[in-house]
Amino acid sequence: MAQPAAGRPRYVVGVDFGTLSGRALVVDVADGTALGEAVHPYRHGVITERLPGGPPLPPDWALQHPDDYREVLRVAVPAALRAAGVRPTDVLGIGVDATASTVLPARADGTPLCELPGLADRPHAYPKLWKHHAAQRQADRINALAAERGERWLARYGGRVSAEWQLAKALQLLEEDPEVFDLAERWVEAADWIVWQLCGRETRNASAAGYKGLRQDGRYPSAEFLRALHPRLDGLLPRVDGPLAPLGARAGGLTPEAAAWTGLAAGVAVAVGTIDAHVTAAAARSVEPGRMLAVLGTSTCLIMNADACHEVPGVCGVVDGGVTTGAWGYEAGQSGVGDIFAWYVANALPASYAERARELGVTPYQLLDSLAAGQPVGGHGLLALDWHSGNRSVLMDHELSGVLVGLTLATRPEEIWRALLESTAFGARTVVAAFEDAGVRVDELTVAGGLTDNRLLLRIYADVLRRPLHVVDSAHPAALGAAIHAAVAVGAYPDVPAASAAMGAPHRETWHPDPARAAVYDELYAHYRALHDHFGRGGTDTLHRLRTLRTRPH
Amino acid sequence: MAQPAAGRPRYVVGVDFGTLSGRALVVDVADGTALGEAVHPYRHGVITERLPGGPPLPPDWALQHPDDYREVLRVAVPAALRAAGVRPTDVLGIGVDATASTVLPARADGTPLCELPGLADRPHAYPKLWKHHAAQRQADRINALAAERGERWLARYGGRVSAEWQLAKALQLLEEDPEVFDLAERWVEAADWIVWQLCGRETRNASAAGYKGLRQDGRYPSAEFLRALHPRLDGLLPRVDGPLAPLGARAGGLTPEAAAWTGLAAGVAVAVGTIDAHVTAAAARSVEPGRMLAVLGTSTCLIMNADACHEVPGVCGVVDGGVTTGAWGYEAGQSGVGDIFAWYVANALPASYAERARELGVTPYQLLDSLAAGQPVGGHGLLALDWHSGNRSVLMDHELSGVLVGLTLATRPEEIWRALLESTAFGARTVVAAFEDAGVRVDELTVAGGLTDNRLLLRIYADVLRRPLHVVDSAHPAALGAAIHAAVAVGAYPDVPAASAAMGAPHRETWHPDPARAAVYDELYAHYRALHDHFGRGGTDTLHRLRTLRTRPH
Repeated sequence: MAQPAAGRPRYVVGVDFGTLSGRALVVDVADGTALGEAVHPYRHGVITERLPGGPPLPPDWALQHPDDYREVLRVAVPAALRAAGVRPTDVLGIGVDATASTVLPARADGTPLCELPGLADRPHAYPKLWKHHAAQRQADRINALAAERGERWLARYGGRVSAEWQLAKALQLLEEDPEVFDLAERWVEAADWIVWQLCGRETRNASAAGYKGLRQDGRYPSAEFLRALHPRLDGLLPRVDGPLAPLGARAGGLTPEAAAWTGLAAGVAVAVGTIDAHVTAAAARSVEPGRMLAVLGTSTCLIMNADACHEVPGVCGVVDGGVTTGAWGYEAGQSGVGDIFAWYVANALPASYAERARELGVTPYQLLDSLAAGQPVGGHGLLALDWHSGNRSVLMDHELSGVLVGLTLATRPEEIWRALLESTAFGARTVVAAFEDAGVRVDELTVAGGLTDNRLLLRIYADVLRRPLHVVDSAHPAALGAAIHAAVAVGAYPDVPAASAAMGAPHRETWHPDPARAAVYDELYAHYRALHDHFGRGGTDTLHRLRTLRTRPH
Repeated sequence: MAQPAAGRPRYVVGVDFGTLSGRALVVDVADGTALGEAVHPYRHGVITERLPGGPPLPPDWALQHPDDYREVLRVAVPAALRAAGVRPTDVLGIGVDATASTVLPARADGTPLCELPGLADRPHAYPKLWKHHAAQRQADRINALAAERGERWLARYGGRVSAEWQLAKALQLLEEDPEVFDLAERWVEAADWIVWQLCGRETRNASAAGYKGLRQDGRYPSAEFLRALHPRLDGLLPRVDGPLAPLGARAGGLTPEAAAWTGLAAGVAVAVGTIDAHVTAAAARSVEPGRMLAVLGTSTCLIMNADACHEVPGVCGVVDGGVTTGAWGYEAGQSGVGDIFAWYVANALPASYAERARELGVTPYQLLDSLAAGQPVGGHGLLALDWHSGNRSVLMDHELSGVLVGLTLATRPEEIWRALLESTAFGARTVVAAFEDAGVRVDELTVAGGLTDNRLLLRIYADVLRRPLHVVDSAHPAALGAAIHAAVAVGAYPDVPAASAAMGAPHRETWHPDPARAAVYDELYAHYRALHDHFGRGGTDTLHRLRTLRTRPH
């Protein structure tokens, strides 16, 4: 096994392209130490209202501007190098991750269509951000047809594909702006497009191709299937087919132009692109089978590896080499977590609580946590379903909605707050149970993401999930993960698991379940599952009818 | 029929003994015009924490002080006479109503035990207010035993009697302070005790004896049944048996002492005592079969007459002559209505809404109403069960709790607010449906009480209940009802229905259902009923388990 030579220090750069900004991190190849970082917000942010100087957008649209990605390379990478104080010649390579599926139409030379003369005012010429939700009708048709035809790949996605993914977005493009579809010679994930800008060569990372492009067993969905959706949709296949590359591979060498942007030396290795949540598993030392990573944020992404392919009902996807080459990578998710907490604080925090938080100099979150922390498990008498933003796993139904039961005239805000925290833990346990029921063992959890600052939440998760809960000690785990992939691409390690073991972040702490609290949570979880199945699996259609009434024209 | 003679004006006084204060109203016998009123708060209020200068009380206790009732007679009645500007000699009689079951132990001469030397520090020597809830365990045993023995009276109470009523409170007294039980020669409703103070003669009004004393078909529960609850509980029978009197009858003439208190002439008629909600039916001109009265307040009381006795499952009680003599009077109730709305405002109104209400110079209730009023029916996508304070009809289960379904990240406070208002309307419709299912026709509704100021609520009730909704135009309908009973007792009218027709308050307005809105509410109500039965009728025991977890010792 090639170990990094002692002596002269060697570095890699990881760049994480998020929803609102990009972040560059300079990392020591030997042990993963972060030496410098820089963040650069996107000039155009998320484009939801109108194109830059152009026409307004319909509801549920979410676009980005590709030059914002280049600007991160031009600004954040040199700034991170300066902050780290390392010589650019000591940097051996660069890796990038991005949100997914964030996908754009481009010419064969990589030029994004929105940068072509005359196309700047065409919404479909822009990258569609992961949370562009205007292709739900297309996704519904894809799911119905795939189920009807018994497409074998469908089970790899838990039986339902998402409106956020490449195919639904491509079908929307073809149906709503066929001229732009025709001009698009490539239909490419943002991470792969950025790698292309860096090394001048197009690659397709196996992870995004699998999870977001429906590529399974070496094939995309068939031309016949695509034509059944739209007579010309089989034209998508040449637009997505391309040099597929495993994670951690070298996509190419840095071009002179990209070297000038970044301040790095031309020719250094550029790693194949990755997905932000999935690459975090490497940063969290959570790529061995049996270890599940939970990235806790606005929503939660759950990632894990296993030796074999199991079809887990309700999982988002299982992809060969989707997390690390040689293992089957599983992705599941909870569509609402931190955003449910934010909704509560914005819409139900009483004035007296807001004032008290101000007096104490804490956030409303901290006040609610401190009031809720002392409650005995079950003491509030409440139970919630965490479906305010629908359910991504295991029901894969975005038309569900949240439920709160057990309210009394004595119910206090901090009790509802705690019930909402707990509901997301029960949601996570439901996913873990689905994995185990399908034969995928989950021995322990590692958590990363913004919500790991919340100690009450961590305690609840450990008690509800009944497993050791490790907390990643890294402020920027996705960027660290991208750097780990770069370290493999430069040959410092033989593969991502080895690089993860050497460079992954340590655990800041580990929470162990308390048997007494966990026993009460077992009982509450049984009631959660009963509610879950009643409202989510056909016991009643009330939530769907309520949604129909809510969204019908009035 | 004896009509009041024209010429010299004649008046009656109605006195309403509420939870926190008493209110006297001087009324014209001819047409019910209110000429003057006065309110006097109870010096001791509701005694929940500790006796005056005495020991602390256990949880769930709620007592009153009998001298507070006398003080209302001494202060409020003369003040109302002064405000009315009528000559006391023109007042022909006085009637009183009170909350029920508010019940006290007294000596054979009417002296309340708490006023005897040496008993002032004995909690059980005081009147137990209707909302004294510390006898739930006794009520549970009464219900279990009555069901086991197949007691025929049980069905008249919808299959379950309340911890608030005379028997449960008496059993608690006997078990916890047998010495006070032995000293108590009488066990008497507050309204009957006040009448006793006024005319020097004990009577028992048929309404309270039936609804609160379990007297049916001329008999209280049998000595054998009572002994099975406690070997000495049959001793209750001589303590409650007494001269039973129909509503509207003359209990006696005003004593010289009570004349001195009130400023009325000695010897004028004192009407038999009444219950506050039931007497409101007379004030609301709602005593004809087919007319249901809803007193909308903290909780809702539903009152109506029918020609026959039907056993309505889940009703609070059906009593021969319980509302007016010669008809079967039905009582049902919703345990939480206005208090659910108050709970929401106290625990979930965001600071920005509180501030906006201040800026606009309106109450939070008014702000929420105005924001919610424009929503299309079903537009919020929410549905709630109004069980935050348990369910008094038709499930008669105080261990249930509130449910809220359909929450999304887009749900706004005014949408939850409207769903809560609607939930209480669905609760009322459930009661109406139970009546109709049992063969008791409900043609129209009349509403009274504090919540009739809320126009959005009235519109929702009319649309949900699909019946004309009349609003009583009286600020003090209970006191007016007591005055109507006094008018019958003085012989101005042959019976309460006749007096109600002449003296009852007019309708301020009538709301008619809107067919389009009502059609959507029909669908929402069907989902409400499905939720109601799932959570309340054994589809799941989640609410009971949550309550057990909430109330167990930690």
